[in-house]
Amino acid sequence: MNFCSNCGSRLRFAIPPGDHLPRHICDACGTIHYRNPRIIAGCIPEHEGRILLCRRAIEPRLGFWTPPAGFMENGETLQQAAAREALEEAQAEVRIGSLLAIVHVLPVEQVHIFFRARLPQPLFGTSPESSEVKLVDPADIPWPEIAFRSTEFALRRYLDDRACGREGLYFAEVERRMAE
Amino acid sequence: MNFCSNCGSRLRFAIPPGDHLPRHICDACGTIHYRNPRIIAGCIPEHEGRILLCRRAIEPRLGFWTPPAGFMENGETLQQAAAREALEEAQAEVRIGSLLAIVHVLPVEQVHIFFRARLPQPLFGTSPESSEVKLVDPADIPWPEIAFRSTEFALRRYLDDRACGREGLYFAEVERRMAE
Repeated sequence: MNFCSNCGSRLRFAIPPGDHLPRHICDACGTIHYRNPRIIAGCIPEHEGRILLCRRAIEPRLGFWTPPAGFMENGETLQQAAAREALEEAQAEVRIGSLLAIVHVLPVEQVHIFFRARLPQPLFGTSPESSEVKLVDPADIPWPEIAFRSTEFALRRYLDDRACGREGLYFAEVERRMAE
Repeated sequence: MNFCSNCGSRLRFAIPPGDHLPRHICDACGTIHYRNPRIIAGCIPEHEGRILLCRRAIEPRLGFWTPPAGFMENGETLQQAAAREALEEAQAEVRIGSLLAIVHVLPVEQVHIFFRARLPQPLFGTSPESSEVKLVDPADIPWPEIAFRSTEFALRRYLDDRACGREGLYFAEVERRMAE
């Protein structure tokens, strides 16, 4: 962040009066530009015991597998965001269920929030973001090819819970960048 | 958002190729500037049956009461953010408990996330953000003077749950701006 998005002047990085962290400050128009974590919303869609996974057609982690998830937009709820991502990435119309996992991905300043979901009909397909989409038996999940630690965490908690008929909520933190 | 924070050029508001929503686009350096919801993290601190409330010393809703809550920063978890806000706003060292409520405050593009919390010692005080801080018996909560619909929702769910020994998770949406 170099320039003020309001007036175009060059920014200064310093602690504003009364604050405790450095911010990007515009001395010309007085705007303080805050940076805050962004939310990724996703879900684990299940159809008759199998899980919907997408093979990523885009970076990061191109070619790896993930349940549908992406950046939450303004004007929508977390549940709407998770359902929209399933539709966009996998052409899948899901019914969002209970909250499953919140993963703080600190190095990239993101909060990943996953819901349980049902896929009532086994209808899905590829998209510009997914080169392949399929329903996978839990025994066949390609764990070494799962794209992100957050999605692996959510998938494992989902399956563990399902095995004992529970719907818990789980938290985790990712402290360091994944070795690519 | 008028100027590119990367290179300082004037931005164009249009739908980028492959996207479905208009974004602020910089034709000079190619950066697309996304805007996403921001997270407010807070908690309902309880000490021996009473609830910690702060009277707001700042806008919006100056003079109204709220449990401690504020913008989540990069580099912290939701629980750390909620505990930090209690310390900053009320000088209160809390122990964060279970997740209580998620309120989508759509008009201001925020997600408000509240935890249950314990205040082990009845130690607290004012701050630049709180002109008065006190422990309130649930029967004495000044409902017409609670600052935000999200905090009212969280408080009510907290007390309803406590009355029947439950710790549920509750979702709500605020669709329109509050009449000031």
